[in-house]
Amino acid sequence: MADYIDLHGAEQSFGDTEAQREVRKNDRDYVFHSWSAQAKIDPLPIAKGEGVRFWDYDGNEFLDFSSQLVNLNLGHQHPGLVKAIQDQAGRLATIQPAMANDVRGELAKRIVEHSFEGARSVFFTNGGADANEYAVRMARHHTGRQKVLARYRSYHGSTATAITLTGEPRRWANGTLDAGVVHFQGPFLYRSAFYAETPEQETERALAHLRATIELEGASTIAAIILESVTGTNGILVPPPGYLAGVRELCDEFGILLICDEVMAGFGRTGEWFAFQAFEVRPDLVTFAKGVNSGYVPLGGVVISEAIHDTFAERPFPGGLTYSGHPLGAAAGVATFDIFEEEGILQRVKDLGSRIVEPRLREMAEKHPSVGEVRGTGLFWAIELVRDRATREPLIPFNAAGEAAAPFNAVVAACKQAGLWPFAAGNRLQIAPPLIISEEDLVRGLDIIDAALDVADGYAAA
Amino acid sequence: MADYIDLHGAEQSFGDTEAQREVRKNDRDYVFHSWSAQAKIDPLPIAKGEGVRFWDYDGNEFLDFSSQLVNLNLGHQHPGLVKAIQDQAGRLATIQPAMANDVRGELAKRIVEHSFEGARSVFFTNGGADANEYAVRMARHHTGRQKVLARYRSYHGSTATAITLTGEPRRWANGTLDAGVVHFQGPFLYRSAFYAETPEQETERALAHLRATIELEGASTIAAIILESVTGTNGILVPPPGYLAGVRELCDEFGILLICDEVMAGFGRTGEWFAFQAFEVRPDLVTFAKGVNSGYVPLGGVVISEAIHDTFAERPFPGGLTYSGHPLGAAAGVATFDIFEEEGILQRVKDLGSRIVEPRLREMAEKHPSVGEVRGTGLFWAIELVRDRATREPLIPFNAAGEAAAPFNAVVAACKQAGLWPFAAGNRLQIAPPLIISEEDLVRGLDIIDAALDVADGYAAA
Ligand SMILES: Cc1ncc(COP(=O)(O)O)c(C=O)c1O
Ligand SMILES: Cc1ncc(COP(=O)(O)O)c(C=O)c1O
Repeated sequence: MADYIDLHGAEQSFGDTEAQREVRKNDRDYVFHSWSAQAKIDPLPIAKGEGVRFWDYDGNEFLDFSSQLVNLNLGHQHPGLVKAIQDQAGRLATIQPAMANDVRGELAKRIVEHSFEGARSVFFTNGGADANEYAVRMARHHTGRQKVLARYRSYHGSTATAITLTGEPRRWANGTLDAGVVHFQGPFLYRSAFYAETPEQETERALAHLRATIELEGASTIAAIILESVTGTNGILVPPPGYLAGVRELCDEFGILLICDEVMAGFGRTGEWFAFQAFEVRPDLVTFAKGVNSGYVPLGGVVISEAIHDTFAERPFPGGLTYSGHPLGAAAGVATFDIFEEEGILQRVKDLGSRIVEPRLREMAEKHPSVGEVRGTGLFWAIELVRDRATREPLIPFNAAGEAAAPFNAVVAACKQAGLWPFAAGNRLQIAPPLIISEEDLVRGLDIIDAALDVADGYAAA
Repeated sequence: MADYIDLHGAEQSFGDTEAQREVRKNDRDYVFHSWSAQAKIDPLPIAKGEGVRFWDYDGNEFLDFSSQLVNLNLGHQHPGLVKAIQDQAGRLATIQPAMANDVRGELAKRIVEHSFEGARSVFFTNGGADANEYAVRMARHHTGRQKVLARYRSYHGSTATAITLTGEPRRWANGTLDAGVVHFQGPFLYRSAFYAETPEQETERALAHLRATIELEGASTIAAIILESVTGTNGILVPPPGYLAGVRELCDEFGILLICDEVMAGFGRTGEWFAFQAFEVRPDLVTFAKGVNSGYVPLGGVVISEAIHDTFAERPFPGGLTYSGHPLGAAAGVATFDIFEEEGILQRVKDLGSRIVEPRLREMAEKHPSVGEVRGTGLFWAIELVRDRATREPLIPFNAAGEAAAPFNAVVAACKQAGLWPFAAGNRLQIAPPLIISEEDLVRGLDIIDAALDVADGYAAA
């Protein structure tokens, strides 16, 4: 299995300062890493982070075009977030979930008010995976049905239900841990599963496929459809016109709930509070994490509609966790809303996306034979690398690892050597810098990517 | 379903200060609570916490004999923990899991060194549930087997695999989300499933029952046995002599891994770093959360043996999470080790438990006809309330709620009215104060419980 978020492509040169040696030794001796073959990795010791940059112990500087794991929406060490955490730590670091707490309630209020019409409450979790676990649980109890439809080319987290919902290779080795999950194909015009040639056709056919799946699985057995409003790691797939509205209609027709996974796309990444807000759709449940507080403190959650909330008015919700609504995470979340307003983050993202990123990527697509397609929105873009534009054969095979992945790793290494940390996934260079990035840094990063594409071009048919 | 950790038994009188009204309103309007019927709860707004105490907005003071959800081992606002969080927030609030980070490595090192012989590394999670999810995943991949044996009267968390491992009523409404789990009976002499009359007999028969379960399920299908080293919420069940050693022997005989869930019992609660250390047993995987940093920042994890670590040396571990090894949580964890040493926490716990708690509880057991049994270790005790000592009929039926639970709720209310917040579970008053509690406060709390037992006595046969 490939490291889907491959951050180990570059040759790393370690200095020999005392601190660095100790960090590296403790890491290799004692830390077990996510998604990795432990003997094959050599994690880069990081000494410092600030804004859109971080540094290793040799002073090598990286411009972070991945916002860490696409969580660092407000960049490293934002003074407003740091202060919120320090203040809350000094006031009341923690209190258990069954109490009422000021910052917890304040954050819940702000999230509900910025989410969707009919939203009623927030159930807080520790991250994205458990947010999806609990959204699915609510849907099952609300509908009395067990199945959940999820899409291929999606990531929903790694605990048992979440990894089964996931529709990409990270699921494979895990088998089927939650027997109630069924996968279907979403719209992806560039590699259409439906032989479509226009966005309209892709929408129509993807909806027909979904309808057929519902009918064949049995509508009366399906509690929910879960989807990333804009698919993240698996390709920055923006839904084509009418798709989300069509999914909503199918849900209404069949009494199925719609869960929008906004863990990666939410909190400004696309220029909206929640990515679904750019479309004609009203979800029943929305899951979030990452951007809610830029990951400064582990926090996730589920926004719950009035109807679903009411299902658990008189009968208990069968789920919970020790750190639900943690004050430290909540304080950083409240500060996030303040900072977004003060710094006009949503407007910046829309502006930078449409004025700087999109035109520049379209230019790269013209120029580089290795670029099959560019797509995205806001500060959330993908460059699909191919060997051949005509056949659309990807630069490396699906889920390639080791030697087979070498051409792509060379592109990633070129980025890192030039001081850019990309969001590398499959055969794609993806772009997801902190939303506070300056125009200058954004252009600088795009310049580096532009240059690195020359490496990809070396493998591509002219 | 009962609130298993029932914290809503007392009549709460809310004042009408502005702040309190807002906290309460936001909570009721926007916060969805764990394990609860949302319209039936009225969470107490908490204004402040310090050491072993917290206060509502009316200035009512509570002595916390529950350490929140048995996580607050170092009490509220410990200066060392607060400083560690504030410093780390100012240095580097977050960095993604694929990097190497100083505090993450340092904490992993300390945990490994304080855990068991042959421990190799730590996989960090956000809490206890996901720690158990990943421990089970490692066991399955290491052994190539799918089943996991777990005990009745246990809690292991609430995500899909963790709630299925759980062997108490919180699992019921969730169905079987992970089809590979099988439950068995552990030792519990007071309500022996094996008709035993001595601890030795209980051990022998519980081990015979486990052996039979293994044989009947098929040893070659069983990846792991998971158990709380000392069962927490479900009764403070300390394993009788020889039981854990016997489980280890069965594991060795059949190539099964032993997972010790130390989420509640670990980090000093029993007077050991990990509760299993008081017994002749070496686990293969140990899960922890809560006490690792007193829950000041969400953090959990799995301690991994060398052999299991090596299984994932060349092949990737199929699991991960955005906040694995979060620096803020890790910094608070490192500080926890320092504070434990500086304040001699483990010695205090052993001393207070054996010198103050145990004799006092034995005295209560003599005095109060409603006390069926007292049991525990360190600062981790249970008072089993009964209607009749001879028949051992519990004060309220198993999993009672509403009217049926009234006698027990009256006892809990008496505690709260006297300013003590107990750890109430089933028919038991449990005792789990912060480990920094002074002798004076400990005695004060025990006095309150002693008095509240008069209420229980009113329901008991003399
Ligand atoms: C869309 C989406 N959902 C869920 C998750 C899982 O979040 P976490 O890693 O916090 O469990 C992720 C993480 O990348 C994600 O991108
Ligand atoms: C023994 C045990 N395991 C696991 C858990 C689950 O931990 P969390 O609530 O952090 O998911 C708990 C929580 O009470 C526990 O007591």
